[in-house]
Amino acid sequence: MKTAQEYKESLKKMRPNIYKFGKLIEDVTTDPATKRTVESHSRCFAAAYEPEYEEIFTTISNFTGEKIFRFNSLMMSEADVIGNSKLKRACYRLTGTCTGAVCVGWNCQNTLYAVTYDMDKEYNTNYHQRLESWIKYAQENSLAVAGALTDPKGDRSKKPSQQADLDSNLRIVEVKKDGIVIRGAKVMICGVAASNEIFLLPGGVYGESDKDFAVACVVPRDIDGLTIVETTRPSDLRELEDNFDMPQTGITQAYLMFDNVFVPNERVFMCGEYKYTRDVINYFTSTYRACIGACVAGQGDVMIGAAVLMARANGLSSRVFFDKLINMSINNEVTYGLGIGAIALGKKHPSGVYFPDQLLANVNKVQVATLPYETKRLTQDIAGGIGETGCLPSCQDIENPQYGQLIEKYLKAGEGSGKTRAKIARLIEWLTLGAGVPGTMHGGGSPDGARLFIRALTPFDKYVDYAKKIMNIEEDVKEPEKAK
Amino acid sequence: MKTAQEYKESLKKMRPNIYKFGKLIEDVTTDPATKRTVESHSRCFAAAYEPEYEEIFTTISNFTGEKIFRFNSLMMSEADVIGNSKLKRACYRLTGTCTGAVCVGWNCQNTLYAVTYDMDKEYNTNYHQRLESWIKYAQENSLAVAGALTDPKGDRSKKPSQQADLDSNLRIVEVKKDGIVIRGAKVMICGVAASNEIFLLPGGVYGESDKDFAVACVVPRDIDGLTIVETTRPSDLRELEDNFDMPQTGITQAYLMFDNVFVPNERVFMCGEYKYTRDVINYFTSTYRACIGACVAGQGDVMIGAAVLMARANGLSSRVFFDKLINMSINNEVTYGLGIGAIALGKKHPSGVYFPDQLLANVNKVQVATLPYETKRLTQDIAGGIGETGCLPSCQDIENPQYGQLIEKYLKAGEGSGKTRAKIARLIEWLTLGAGVPGTMHGGGSPDGARLFIRALTPFDKYVDYAKKIMNIEEDVKEPEKAK
Amino acid sequence: MKTAQEYKESLKKMRPNIYKFGKLIEDVTTDPATKRTVESHSRCFAAAYEPEYEEIFTTISNFTGEKIFRFNSLMMSEADVIGNSKLKRACYRLTGTCTGAVCVGWNCQNTLYAVTYDMDKEYNTNYHQRLESWIKYAQENSLAVAGALTDPKGDRSKKPSQQADLDSNLRIVEVKKDGIVIRGAKVMICGVAASNEIFLLPGGVYGESDKDFAVACVVPRDIDGLTIVETTRPSDLRELEDNFDMPQTGITQAYLMFDNVFVPNERVFMCGEYKYTRDVINYFTSTYRACIGACVAGQGDVMIGAAVLMARANGLSSRVFFDKLINMSINNEVTYGLGIGAIALGKKHPSGVYFPDQLLANVNKVQVATLPYETKRLTQDIAGGIGETGCLPSCQDIENPQYGQLIEKYLKAGEGSGKTRAKIARLIEWLTLGAGVPGTMHGGGSPDGARLFIRALTPFDKYVDYAKKIMNIEEDVKEPEKAK
Amino acid sequence: MKTAQEYKESLKKMRPNIYKFGKLIEDVTTDPATKRTVESHSRCFAAAYEPEYEEIFTTISNFTGEKIFRFNSLMMSEADVIGNSKLKRACYRLTGTCTGAVCVGWNCQNTLYAVTYDMDKEYNTNYHQRLESWIKYAQENSLAVAGALTDPKGDRSKKPSQQADLDSNLRIVEVKKDGIVIRGAKVMICGVAASNEIFLLPGGVYGESDKDFAVACVVPRDIDGLTIVETTRPSDLRELEDNFDMPQTGITQAYLMFDNVFVPNERVFMCGEYKYTRDVINYFTSTYRACIGACVAGQGDVMIGAAVLMARANGLSSRVFFDKLINMSINNEVTYGLGIGAIALGKKHPSGVYFPDQLLANVNKVQVATLPYETKRLTQDIAGGIGETGCLPSCQDIENPQYGQLIEKYLKAGEGSGKTRAKIARLIEWLTLGAGVPGTMHGGGSPDGARLFIRALTPFDKYVDYAKKIMNIEEDVKEPEKAK
Repeated sequence: MKTAQEYKESLKKMRPNIYKFGKLIEDVTTDPATKRTVESHSRCFAAAYEPEYEEIFTTISNFTGEKIFRFNSLMMSEADVIGNSKLKRACYRLTGTCTGAVCVGWNCQNTLYAVTYDMDKEYNTNYHQRLESWIKYAQENSLAVAGALTDPKGDRSKKPSQQADLDSNLRIVEVKKDGIVIRGAKVMICGVAASNEIFLLPGGVYGESDKDFAVACVVPRDIDGLTIVETTRPSDLRELEDNFDMPQTGITQAYLMFDNVFVPNERVFMCGEYKYTRDVINYFTSTYRACIGACVAGQGDVMIGAAVLMARANGLSSRVFFDKLINMSINNEVTYGLGIGAIALGKKHPSGVYFPDQLLANVNKVQVATLPYETKRLTQDIAGGIGETGCLPSCQDIENPQYGQLIEKYLKAGEGSGKTRAKIARLIEWLTLGAGVPGTMHGGGSPDGARLFIRALTPFDKYVDYAKKIMNIEEDVKEPEKAK
Repeated sequence: MKTAQEYKESLKKMRPNIYKFGKLIEDVTTDPATKRTVESHSRCFAAAYEPEYEEIFTTISNFTGEKIFRFNSLMMSEADVIGNSKLKRACYRLTGTCTGAVCVGWNCQNTLYAVTYDMDKEYNTNYHQRLESWIKYAQENSLAVAGALTDPKGDRSKKPSQQADLDSNLRIVEVKKDGIVIRGAKVMICGVAASNEIFLLPGGVYGESDKDFAVACVVPRDIDGLTIVETTRPSDLRELEDNFDMPQTGITQAYLMFDNVFVPNERVFMCGEYKYTRDVINYFTSTYRACIGACVAGQGDVMIGAAVLMARANGLSSRVFFDKLINMSINNEVTYGLGIGAIALGKKHPSGVYFPDQLLANVNKVQVATLPYETKRLTQDIAGGIGETGCLPSCQDIENPQYGQLIEKYLKAGEGSGKTRAKIARLIEWLTLGAGVPGTMHGGGSPDGARLFIRALTPFDKYVDYAKKIMNIEEDVKEPEKAK
Repeated sequence: MKTAQEYKESLKKMRPNIYKFGKLIEDVTTDPATKRTVESHSRCFAAAYEPEYEEIFTTISNFTGEKIFRFNSLMMSEADVIGNSKLKRACYRLTGTCTGAVCVGWNCQNTLYAVTYDMDKEYNTNYHQRLESWIKYAQENSLAVAGALTDPKGDRSKKPSQQADLDSNLRIVEVKKDGIVIRGAKVMICGVAASNEIFLLPGGVYGESDKDFAVACVVPRDIDGLTIVETTRPSDLRELEDNFDMPQTGITQAYLMFDNVFVPNERVFMCGEYKYTRDVINYFTSTYRACIGACVAGQGDVMIGAAVLMARANGLSSRVFFDKLINMSINNEVTYGLGIGAIALGKKHPSGVYFPDQLLANVNKVQVATLPYETKRLTQDIAGGIGETGCLPSCQDIENPQYGQLIEKYLKAGEGSGKTRAKIARLIEWLTLGAGVPGTMHGGGSPDGARLFIRALTPFDKYVDYAKKIMNIEEDVKEPEKAK
Repeated sequence: MKTAQEYKESLKKMRPNIYKFGKLIEDVTTDPATKRTVESHSRCFAAAYEPEYEEIFTTISNFTGEKIFRFNSLMMSEADVIGNSKLKRACYRLTGTCTGAVCVGWNCQNTLYAVTYDMDKEYNTNYHQRLESWIKYAQENSLAVAGALTDPKGDRSKKPSQQADLDSNLRIVEVKKDGIVIRGAKVMICGVAASNEIFLLPGGVYGESDKDFAVACVVPRDIDGLTIVETTRPSDLRELEDNFDMPQTGITQAYLMFDNVFVPNERVFMCGEYKYTRDVINYFTSTYRACIGACVAGQGDVMIGAAVLMARANGLSSRVFFDKLINMSINNEVTYGLGIGAIALGKKHPSGVYFPDQLLANVNKVQVATLPYETKRLTQDIAGGIGETGCLPSCQDIENPQYGQLIEKYLKAGEGSGKTRAKIARLIEWLTLGAGVPGTMHGGGSPDGARLFIRALTPFDKYVDYAKKIMNIEEDVKEPEKAK
């Protein structure tokens, strides 16, 4: 198990292939555009060495019996998947935002552990063995692994193979004896800058005509032929300087562009078996959508803390706002607890890995796309004007030798200093509007997609039968044929 | 394990002590005021013999290893408490409403199984042994057991011992060698008419001055000195006749008035140990508030079914309403799944029984007091005018020889007959406004009470620390002292 | 202007043609099934003579300059339509529920005042003159006029003329020299039992093939050939007795079945002019949906009052619940104020009558189908267990000589008597679940219908242009053609 | 009436006294930190010359009968205040965000027109005359006037005169013969950089001990002794460059710090008359909170447009999202229409100006603090991943010669180009998370403040009476005395 320091060093050694604001990032651990997300992830490594967090961030390898980072483990039981939830909530509490490289890749490997097991059975392939070897390697090397599903997609009304530009979805362009060549892109991928490797899964359910897009593999982040461009988010230009009102932590998302990248066979876990892309999506989303409730709950916890602090810094008792604070706590616990419920009703796959209940997981995704927005609103409501957008001068102004003292004096309200009040207000902006906002609405799939699952998984006709039996209705009342 | 028939016979034999509409009910199984709730409960007995429901309604006694009704069991694991949830959802699906006598008494005995264990340890009493004996007896005799906590309370600003009328809360008036004498009342108690026995628990957390009110025991429903009055609910006067548009099932709630009732020692499980009333409330509400989500989910399932049926009977495709139906399904699964989450994060008590997580259970109670109201609204929305209140003539009119045919003709819309359409509309009224509405807002305690739990169980100061660490705030920002 | 007494006498004289529970109602003013709604309406007549309400319930006739009941007036200005809103809110405050016979007919006559004006212009008919004469007559005789639009409709996927049973929509079966013969039905019509006359409007927008259904006229409630059946609503069987826990007021809805009813020409205002059915619907719904917000606000006011009372009777300060009471007040004022907004942005029709803005009126209808449900939920929340369903014995039990005193003693909580507490709880049940619930979800049309209006009236493409101009987007981004 | 060009020139001539990011802004019309808000305001000037908008942006002066900008007018009727709402909605539609300098100062002058009228009557002062003169001057010179109420306040538990630092609220430090000297600050003031003058009103209701803080006056933005610091908002560092993905328009807010600023008597309209500070707050908030619904509606219109565009650019039909789009439209129309309702129920002040109904205005403020957040959530929901935070590379990357083409190709989805899709996504970010978000939660006062008004203005006891009369309750049920 690497220390936080060793983890950072492992990133330092990698080939620079990440860009932001038009410039190449030479060292992700020091470049202002990426050092904050690296710091976020490094706190997760560090937490494994703290007694308070050890149980959350470590577990025992089912292969070696050794203690490993939990995010390198296989989740073989209800308790293991609840461990995923707890880790995510802890990550948000420690960093205020998302640490994708200790989350998504983890989920990808578990998903494929089941899918390769089934594929091998049907096709007599040896994907499962390959994956197991890689997982052991990842455990030994404490790898931070990002995960990438989302393709650029191109024209949504057409299949991947029908796109004008076939690169619109990541695809196999050549199958060689010792590996495959892939090209295309994955977009909006979280935590890439802080990762050692990136796990690639198909981004949709494909039929035979799209079998070239049915590809799963894992690649080093700095593999040849891969160009990465970080996205920009509100207020992240502020990150380019080290201001007193900026968190040390952060989040990034990236576009990954693959230009005929060669992936050796031992890192390839699906290559054309399109039939199993459905299972990939089902298994991945079950765990992801059950556990994402813990992410937004963890950020919600920080928002509660920030709101309480802001009230105090405004010179008000936080007790005045208890009704709102309770509502915020309820929102957090609903997404967390409902996810736990999905896990508790889950099932073990023959391969040994455990997946949450799909219906509840998707119901949770809809909550995740709704409740945190209300929590943010309540945070701003409690914060007062200063916590709303555009109500605080920049740090350059607060520290300006000419008039900065004046601003500081006018910022002072309750017991704390004006600068502390400014920092809290800035934290609230960062959490509710700024660079700290995670993309949880569409992350792991859209709420509308989740609703389609819910529709498919709700047994409407069974419910009709219950109603009929209670009312003693014997007549068959059918869906009307379509009106002419 | 009794059959449904044997269960009904056991009720038939009891002493008549229940009144409604000013009249004594001679036989609860045939009197129109109570036969519907008896039918509801009897469906639960019958389900235990159906393969589809057997696993839900039966389990193995931890005492005897014999198969018993699940509602007579001790819940010793996460799976057992999830079993409680599943049973409740099934009960609602089968009856459309609440079957309190296979629910609340069950929870009471589990609560006391833990509390008597702890009391015996401290006080060297033998309550635990007494309770165990009774539970075995209940298992052997397949008893339907109601449970009663809510006292009339009197003036809410005063303690029980301060009330002008001491009977405002159920109390011990005499401790005899072989038993105790109790008087006072329990009110709004569900399922009493369908029960063999009633489990009595203290309705609040008491201090030393109120120790006479710290009483727990179990009594036959027809015990000497107990007078029971059923309450009335909207549309239940219709139950006095057997109309084509009435469900066979039903629900009742009752006022229990104890006039110096003698309870022998072997049925007394708490007698003055006021210190443990807090545990009674905590354990009871944890399980109750986790599992009540399944109740409203089960009724919600029936509402989905009724809404789909109504749409069809109106001549419309239910597909038109899928967005609303999905929202209804989400509401159901949130209360169900969040309760399951509370259970999954629960803990085993040293006595062996298992209790859900208190924070999540109380968060769920708040959802239960909110989401089903929206589900009802959506049911009426989908149903169209005919499903709203006051839009359907009575069955006497529909069957009137003179003009009934005319009404029936005007009721016909889609494929089904006018009468079937009327039955569905009436079911929707029954579920959303009428006699089938269960009292889940305040049942098992009020949402405001649950909010107080949430406030106490949310670690606000820990959340403040998270916020401070993320923003690197070192200054201590305290709650302001109260303004002069 | 009739007194309340004279109004009741006018009803007494009418031919009995109303049935409920299978029986003919001989006198609507004394029969328990209808006397409560008559009492409700009679309070509106009486209010016109009270200084506090005079301005609300009376106005000046634009024809005669005499003081008349406002509900017999033409609404010729913004202030006049606001007067409609204010009257409705007052009616609910005085009766707790809906008084359809001083509301819908009023709206019908105003709608037709505009439509007949336009029809006469195009077709050279003299409908406008006929209507004017009838309105003068109605003013002189202080008529209470119900209004009826909703047809049984039959199979929703077919037009009126395509129905298997042509009676599924009210229609003209014969045009005679001196009048028309109509048959079919109108259903779910409010206030009929308390009305002197009934105004009939087409229930949909019709094309040429359905011109026989384009009929508007006004008929005495007891006209030959008309059979009326009252519907039943939850708890209305209680109305058959005069119990201490029943309001004196009430609401009814009815099925009107026309068996070849002859209507003389002077009472016919549309006869086949199908093209104008669209205007009928547009004008009617504009005013109705703007003003219905006042109805639910008025009932909400009573719910606030009942909730405050209940808290006090429970022995609690209503201050504890102020956050919820404020939310209830907000809900009331939103539906009321938004309706006023719709009126303020309305327009005068060339005929002189004034109609609210259609977009805002329909937006309000959606609020009316949502917010009052939350207000009801809050009422039950504040009320505590006793205000929820099934938590109160019947009045026969409370007054039972044997055990009634006992119940009463257990009902006592705060300062008031047990009986008063029971009355308040019963009022809350009546308002939120029982016979007092008005059918405002679908009354005046369904929220889904309102949403279609909103869709049609929102200028989406204009909004696209705003977005493009702000962002300086010149490229045309079209709706995609449908995917194959 | 100035042209847009003349307006900009008038700003150019002013003394530089505004800072941002630690630097002095020499010319607000060209400095990147302020030029966007100047452009926003200048579009309002320009609109007055466009036929489509002329009626909205101009009116007739009640003093001179000449055509003037509407934002320089006195609002003397319901129609005039509705004109305020319409202007605000138009401003947001044209600029996407807030243009404070054609809004708040306007409201200030109307408020004081009433208050000075009353003060003069009581105190025999000549404030009203002074104000009238200045208004005429403002009309003649087409002044853009910001308005400032919010003081820094300091310790919220103390009055202004009790603050450790008396400057925490703007105050009179000296009354000279020819004018007054003020010091202190106003904070979070919108539109200052685009204003010619700033109208100052007291920020609270004061008693006699705080009479030095009861000051109202108007000052040129560049008056001697005034230092202005612009605040920073998420993503506004991007505004420092002219990127293809930035709107031309913008919003700013500022801290105004007064260092013994002399204001001549003819510009002073309140000087110690503390008793009238309550009226200032009441009148100002009535109009402000009625009309602010139009602001968020206007931005909501742009969000609807942007969402439709985004769907199309994603290659999807916007029809798929109609249910959500209708919900967005409803949210917009509720805040707009409810504000109009408040106006319609308003009253004319003896001075001639017209103020909306206070209860409805405050109810609207609560909606404004809630519904737009849901509209933003829906915008992001419809937009898909690309519209969420952190899902789009910067313009520098999209235009990078090395890999920019690659990003652009992956951004292309439907018919439009990749760059156009990026611009729409960026607009959505700007509207929902970025620099375009207006501070409407606390702008014009907090929703909690509005709730206090609602509580005070709801006649709870009257509502209790309605409930009692309906239920025929004669017993007086009082609030309980406080429990000991």
